Amino acid sequence: MARPIFVTFAAGSTGPWTIDSITPVVGSWTLAEASHLAVFENVRASGAAAWALRGVTSNERYVTTSERAALTAVQEDLGRPEATSAALIPIRKTDAWWDLPQDTRRAILEERSHHIATGLDYLPAIARRLHHSRELAEPFDFLTWFEFAPSATADFDSLLTRLRATEEWTYVDREVDIRLSR
Amino acid sequence: MARPIFVTFAAGSTGPWTIDSITPVVGSWTLAEASHLAVFENVRASGAAAWALRGVTSNERYVTTSERAALTAVQEDLGRPEATSAALIPIRKTDAWWDLPQDTRRAILEERSHHIATGLDYLPAIARRLHHSRELAEPFDFLTWFEFAPSATADFDSLLTRLRATEEWTYVDREVDIRLSR
Repeated sequence: MARPIFVTFAAGSTGPWTIDSITPVVGSWTLAEASHLAVFENVRASGAAAWALRGVTSNERYVTTSERAALTAVQEDLGRPEATSAALIPIRKTDAWWDLPQDTRRAILEERSHHIATGLDYLPAIARRLHHSRELAEPFDFLTWFEFAPSATADFDSLLTRLRATEEWTYVDREVDIRLSR
Repeated sequence: MARPIFVTFAAGSTGPWTIDSITPVVGSWTLAEASHLAVFENVRASGAAAWALRGVTSNERYVTTSERAALTAVQEDLGRPEATSAALIPIRKTDAWWDLPQDTRRAILEERSHHIATGLDYLPAIARRLHHSRELAEPFDFLTWFEFAPSATADFDSLLTRLRATEEWTYVDREVDIRLSR
């Protein structure tokens, strides 16, 4: 887990994932239509792409020791055979968010918005991996990739609805919701 | 402060800073000898360089609201005319460090190693800027740039001695100490 994984999400006419929809959620920024998505790890994606978003896994920024234990007890890895549905949710947060001290960001994220606890409610059905993009001069700050069985789609929508209603989300100024299947 | 600044430290035969010494402190990794250093912000450094290290400013990872207030009350900016001495200290931390949860890293860094409080003791004489490199696939995790008047050199050495004696520093597995003047 310690070593960062450099991930490129490349949309185009080929790739193992079919793009079912691309929907702007916050702000007017969106991504060009494309039929397929490929996910490259630790390689420079080559060839023509409609668009490509890059991110890197990193150390946890907010999760405490006890929260880590609760998460690792139940969370599943990416790549489960039954997880044929996926979502890629790029978001950007405001300058006001990034200017807050660590303790204030933590309080908003968890004590007041329950981001970690809410995610825990949907484990192990929904697997996720967070990628950081802010330090890569990308158009988004985070790319979160989710995988789940098609039967968990309503649960996944519920998770997003709950997160988007939080105080934390008032600091999100750009969000796109990309749904995929394979 | 919110927007990341992408910084390249390029060593070669030209640049405003003269490199006075390059000393490996932890580990055997070092950097080739060069006579000068140039610091580029938000531009891709061009031309031949002996070596170049890249980093990006980012949000604070550990500083609390009260610590932020104490720091901003006394810290000085880079670029003071009298600050003709500088140091560039690249460090890398172990995988064990990066695998620790946020609360444990914070406890080691400040409650047990007093990193923030120690730095505060040397303000405003020593100005600093932290650059993150871990998410850029660089050979170091952090590049810290310090500027001070030559008369503050002994104080700067004292600051480094205190930090290097901490529990936090047991997680540092690569460190180089580069001194410069202009």
